[in-house]
Formats: sequence, structure tokens, C-alpha cells
Amino acid sequence: MSKFSLTPTEIRRFENGEFKTATDMLSVEEPLLIRLVSGDGNLDPVDLSVTMRTPGNDRDLAVGFLFTEGIIREKDDIVQVLELDGEVRVQIRNFDQLDLKKLERHFYTTSSCGVCGKASIDAVKLACPIIVPSKNWTISHEILRSLPEKLRKSQSSFDFSGGIHASGLFDLQGNLMDLSEDVGRHNALDKLIGRALERGEVPLFNSVLLLSGRASFELVQKASMAGVRMICAIGAPSSLAVELADEYQITLVGFLKENRFNVYTAFDRVLL
Amino acid sequence: MSKFSLTPTEIRRFENGEFKTATDMLSVEEPLLIRLVSGDGNLDPVDLSVTMRTPGNDRDLAVGFLFTEGIIREKDDIVQVLELDGEVRVQIRNFDQLDLKKLERHFYTTSSCGVCGKASIDAVKLACPIIVPSKNWTISHEILRSLPEKLRKSQSSFDFSGGIHASGLFDLQGNLMDLSEDVGRHNALDKLIGRALERGEVPLFNSVLLLSGRASFELVQKASMAGVRMICAIGAPSSLAVELADEYQITLVGFLKENRFNVYTAFDRVLL
Repeated sequence: MSKFSLTPTEIRRFENGEFKTATDMLSVEEPLLIRLVSGDGNLDPVDLSVTMRTPGNDRDLAVGFLFTEGIIREKDDIVQVLELDGEVRVQIRNFDQLDLKKLERHFYTTSSCGVCGKASIDAVKLACPIIVPSKNWTISHEILRSLPEKLRKSQSSFDFSGGIHASGLFDLQGNLMDLSEDVGRHNALDKLIGRALERGEVPLFNSVLLLSGRASFELVQKASMAGVRMICAIGAPSSLAVELADEYQITLVGFLKENRFNVYTAFDRVLL
Repeated sequence: MSKFSLTPTEIRRFENGEFKTATDMLSVEEPLLIRLVSGDGNLDPVDLSVTMRTPGNDRDLAVGFLFTEGIIREKDDIVQVLELDGEVRVQIRNFDQLDLKKLERHFYTTSSCGVCGKASIDAVKLACPIIVPSKNWTISHEILRSLPEKLRKSQSSFDFSGGIHASGLFDLQGNLMDLSEDVGRHNALDKLIGRALERGEVPLFNSVLLLSGRASFELVQKASMAGVRMICAIGAPSSLAVELADEYQITLVGFLKENRFNVYTAFDRVLL
């Protein structure tokens, strides 16, 4: 694994009944643009995909993506691969025979597309201007540590080790207000936010969001659109999730367990 | 959670040193099409997204997706929502002012797009005809149970509880041949397959793939493109992952631990 795959960040860790300043290592999440180019430069390049990935082995990632998605059939379909910062340019045989219309419809470009994390964050800021609620609030570590068990008890049939992701919405007293489940964690969150929107409760300034898995950039982006000011995850946050939360001054809590957790950003909302 | 969110399947469970036939409950994964329509029917509908989701609360999911991706700004931007089987049609205000070009570039449509699981599987079969290797093989439960620890030991810095997904490729004697890590599980797999392709080792008929997390449809689809005949996951498989593996007669192992695991499909490759 590349040396760029982990990055340090300063956190507040709650453990053994007290808070300490500590350094945590984050998995790096940054966008990669996969771009197809023609050999002679006579045809416009095709931006195939922007994927949120951990830097390192970008060439392998691009080649593997092209193969597993059926764009190339064999190794020899690749003429040349050029690795740039946040971009891989692949020259393929028969570039001029690509069915562009089909490609356009079939691949992923995140709403945060851009070729670096900074551009991704700027794109979110453009789509979703920062609104700071007039009143701030705090929450105790006791309430925070009680949330995972409450979510787990309310899940229909699977616990966290099962096949399903859950998103829970709590009030500031730690009461579970709503819960969604889905095989896709972005879907679980969209269901939760969609319902809150229809109930007229968005922006969710005075709610705590709990995610059963990890906190990725995409999930923090969705929560920020809904005005969420505190996101707790049972798993780890990515580097770009922390950067976006910091930019929006959303409190991001990771590795939330009954007896410990980490606070990555906007520490003031957790009563120390 | 909806009653459609879990589905039973017959498995072989290894536990306490022996195999038993058992019933396991799978989280349902099925595609949902989110389609925007105009009120008067004078404009072509826009197929915005096909997402792999757990059925139930489809309306919430569609509304939440539109909001968190910035297509709508408030509840009142929605005129009407129609829920169909595998499809949600949303009539929004100002439909005629949508920037279609921007939408086309910014959203996800899987390569398996279709409006039911069957259509998704058919799409994969079309892109990737089933090739059956001339020689089959078997593997012992002892070797299988040794794989997670080998992968864990080789991961650079995080274990499975950390912030990163891993994909490992093993030979039939249980030796780790290659390993990839990424915040995105589909990326970890693409890196692994891309490298194997460049080494000239695809199709991977005689390898065992180990995934550090869950097995979704997308991961089984990618592995099937590379000719993988056995996929093991530390976590749970989804319903559509099991269906696709069954269609391709790929052996799918889930919840793989040192002392137990489940076999979901193509049981014959595991020595009972």
C-alpha cells in the first residue's frame, strides 16, 4: 500500500472515562478521474468516471475498472496508461468505436466530481452554502455513548454484523426519532433525510445522526445538505469526510462505542 | 423496515467442526430506478439514477436522493410521487429547467441497470458470457478458514475494524498471491483485478477471492468478469449477490471466520 494511504489528524479521544488529545490515522479518500484518450489526439477525451478512492495503484484501479465494467476485453486493448495527480489517462484500441451514449448512461460520476479533494469540497460548498444556525448546543458523552445500543435494539432483525446498514436520527436528549435500513449506506441515509424532508423537519440543526458503518465523504455531504450538525459513526471516517465536516463545522464522531469514541472536528459540541 | 427486506436461502453452514444444511436470511438488494417526469407529459422523462437498494421506503429514498444531491431544494419542489415496482416517478416543479447535461454527468447508473434483479443479472450475462473452465477443483474447510487471518496479517496498517477495505487473491493451497486496499470496496477489487490482468493471469479460474467486508451484487459482477470461481466474504452477501453467483455457478462463502462460515452457492467446491 502506498505511503499516501494514511494521513494523521488531531482528535479528542474519550477513553477510560476521560478525554485526551490524540493523533489518529485516517484512510485517505480522494477523487480519481479515469479519462479515455485517443492515440492521435484527434478525438475529444472521454471522462469515464470519477471514483472516490485511496491513492496508490491508480493505474491498476483504472485498468481493472475498464475491464470489470466491460470497456476493454483484454490486456492488449490498452495501448498506453499515463498516471497524473488525481487522474489516469488511458489510451485504448478502437477508441473511435466507443458507444459514448451507452458509456454516459452507465458510469458513475459523483456529484462531487473534481480531481482533488479540495475541488470536491468546493463543489459541495457551491451546491450547499454553509448555513450556521443561530443557536449552538452541546451534548454529553453519556448520551453519545448510549446511542449505538439504542440503534441496535431498534433494528428490525440484523445487528451491526449483519448484511444491512442503518442510519438513525436522535434528538439532543438521545431519543431515537427515526431509523432507516438498506444494503447501501447512502440509501439508508437518503431514506432518513427524505422522510425528514417530507415531515417538514429539514434543516436538521438539532439532531444527531448515527451511521452504523464508516463515514465517507459522500455521507457527510448528504448530511450537510440536510443541515445536520453532528454525525456519529460506529466505524472510521475517511480523510475527506473529516475535511468536509471541518469545513462545515459539523461535529464528526468516529468509532462510537459504549465505552469510547473519537471526536474529529468541531469538538465544542461534545461536553468535555 | 419492510417485510420485503429479508429473504430466506438454503445454505451449508460449517460450525463446530461439521457441515449442516441450514436456512439463512439475506438482506434483499434490488435495483430502483428514479425517474423524473413532467406534469403535462409533454417532455421526455429523465432517468436519473438506478441505485441498488433494499426495497421498502422507496418514496423516501427517491425524495431524499433528490434533496441530498441538490436536484430539489425543498419539499414543495415535489408535485407528486408515484411508486411502482422497482421504479419511483417523481414529478417536480420546474422540470423543464433541469440542466440535463449536468445531470447526465453527475449521477450513478450501474452497469447493471435494469428495473429488477433479473434484468440486472441478464445485463451481466450479456456483457460477460458464462465461460466454464474445463477443470473444476475443490478446497478444504481448513484452508478456507485460514484465509481471513492471512489477509489480516498482510494488511499494511489497519485491521478489518479500521477504515479500509481489502481484497485478497489466494491460490488453491491458501497462499496469498496479491492484496489491495481502498476506502471503496469496489476500488480494492478493481485494483486487484487490474493488476492480475496486466500480469496476464485473467481469467482467474484457479484463485479464491477474499473480500474484507460484505459481498454485494456489484462485487460479484466484477469478480465474474475476471472468471473468479470462488468468492469469500468476511461479511454477509446480499440476495442479488447470491442470485448472480448461483447463475454463474460461482461458490459464494459468507461470514468467513476461523471457526465457521456459510456456503451460499455452488457447494461442490468446498470439501464436505
